Amino acid sequence: MKIRIGIYGYGNLGRGVESAIAQNSDMTLAAVFTRRDPSKLTIATAGVPVCHTDDVEQYKDKIDVMILCGGSATDLPVQTPALARIFSVIDSFDTHAKIPEHFLRVDQAAKESGNCAMISVGWDPGMFSINRLYGEAILPEGKDYTFWGRGVSQGHSDAIRRIDGVVDAKQYTIPVDSALEAVRSGSCPSLTTREKHLRECFVVAEEGADKARIEKEIKEMPNYFADYDTIVHFISAEELRAEHSGIPHGGFVIRTGKTGADSATNHVIEYSLKLDSNPEFTASVIVAFARALYRMKNEGMVGCKTVFDVPPAYLSPRSYSEIISTML
Amino acid sequence: MKIRIGIYGYGNLGRGVESAIAQNSDMTLAAVFTRRDPSKLTIATAGVPVCHTDDVEQYKDKIDVMILCGGSATDLPVQTPALARIFSVIDSFDTHAKIPEHFLRVDQAAKESGNCAMISVGWDPGMFSINRLYGEAILPEGKDYTFWGRGVSQGHSDAIRRIDGVVDAKQYTIPVDSALEAVRSGSCPSLTTREKHLRECFVVAEEGADKARIEKEIKEMPNYFADYDTIVHFISAEELRAEHSGIPHGGFVIRTGKTGADSATNHVIEYSLKLDSNPEFTASVIVAFARALYRMKNEGMVGCKTVFDVPPAYLSPRSYSEIISTML
Repeated sequence: MKIRIGIYGYGNLGRGVESAIAQNSDMTLAAVFTRRDPSKLTIATAGVPVCHTDDVEQYKDKIDVMILCGGSATDLPVQTPALARIFSVIDSFDTHAKIPEHFLRVDQAAKESGNCAMISVGWDPGMFSINRLYGEAILPEGKDYTFWGRGVSQGHSDAIRRIDGVVDAKQYTIPVDSALEAVRSGSCPSLTTREKHLRECFVVAEEGADKARIEKEIKEMPNYFADYDTIVHFISAEELRAEHSGIPHGGFVIRTGKTGADSATNHVIEYSLKLDSNPEFTASVIVAFARALYRMKNEGMVGCKTVFDVPPAYLSPRSYSEIISTML
Repeated sequence: MKIRIGIYGYGNLGRGVESAIAQNSDMTLAAVFTRRDPSKLTIATAGVPVCHTDDVEQYKDKIDVMILCGGSATDLPVQTPALARIFSVIDSFDTHAKIPEHFLRVDQAAKESGNCAMISVGWDPGMFSINRLYGEAILPEGKDYTFWGRGVSQGHSDAIRRIDGVVDAKQYTIPVDSALEAVRSGSCPSLTTREKHLRECFVVAEEGADKARIEKEIKEMPNYFADYDTIVHFISAEELRAEHSGIPHGGFVIRTGKTGADSATNHVIEYSLKLDSNPEFTASVIVAFARALYRMKNEGMVGCKTVFDVPPAYLSPRSYSEIISTML
């Protein structure tokens, strides 16, 4: 009996989830839900129903875990609590500051309906969070640092596109090598996000546009760029398409700490990701945790959970004895 | 009410556990057990009883978690099952091939006595195992690689010391940079342990000893060195003491894998450790998992567990709501 997964929202993340399900033989895609006209949506998997979100309740007994693939700004704050009343749900809600209130809303909905939910699954929040926790628990006298990149920031790319005279743009967030090295040295430097990252922009300008003015507007844009070292390249639309159409991302979680009778011994724990596709990797993490959620639900767990609640063994399709003998 | 920890065996690992307990304010050292004459053993923590291992049963109700700090070759196979009949126990049993049988023996003893036990806690087995599991679960179409070092191998150092004319020696296992780079490229190379590591030896020879013969004996030693690229340096006893008295170690767990509709997108997950003291870091990992074991036992869990059974939240002294709001 395979785990029946539903996909709610079919953008980059939804397509990534669809591919990831195909890589896991203990899972099957039960249905895809869209707000668009289902008859106009073609999905990659043959024979799987595409349904309108309005009809989702009809799938109550046909789906074991519903994976929500909407955005954190407006979709998930509404969708996750609403769907947690019908299904066991998992989302990738990534607005860090609003996680506690999202948790409470989803927890209440899941508890009232006897379902199990999991929020903020992906790599940050997600695998990076787990590594921050492991690092602090193992080395309590220490400090952890998170660096992001090299990767595309959609928000910053959009901000550049709104500048007059800009046709298209892509912005990469890049960790500063010297900051990474300072952290790895164990010296526990105080570093702001600005000191840890620089911003590199690839911009397609309108013909005849004033590039100096555009560059100035980018570099002085408050919140987005003014506080960072920013590099601006003007390139052609063809080059942007050819060289910058991917959605790579990644980053580093580094914990340094001291142990021993006089706290004089140094240790460095480093976890890093180098991802050629941010949404596909996020989807792969979600699908592994959907397996765990299915098992936790079957054990009778109810309410909202996070990656912190998941025993690693629950993520693996292998039997416990196989894990012990091959991976421990 | 602090978690009362017992230390069973007071060598490098036991001393590391003692230091780690002092870094965790929710724990207290209840007693240290030794096979030696307790009156001749002075420990670092004031006011803590040092007892003979023969008297351990008297501490049945005074210790929440007993941390076993003996060796995997002869101590733990006997001690962990025996003590699991009296206490909730945790060990760092690291003979990978014998983990399944050790698990079964400890599981039976713990179940018969209603205790909870955890085996093979440290960094490999331990944190490296967890990362192998996470990596495979997230990227099922891929391959993982474990590299060890740069670090001291006690077994290889001892093997050199047994050669005629050798006064003392220290052997470092070192990952081969080109192998690391090949793995990180995502090309999934087939690599033997030999191709992944080289061995560097610092040897103090007797005055007048035939160094060429010693070097040849080292490099041709079956199992230990014959299959590896081995570098031998002859140094003075003073230099060995000054430069090579530490017990550093570390290594890398790298998972590369592919995702997407045509499995064409590459990802690299890398977890690495750089440890100035192998036993002190191992001790710090054990102490964090002792907290988790204490909580699992209080929830009524019985039998043998491993790091794969531990929800990350159980490792942290912080409250769940604090973890959600600060680390997720």
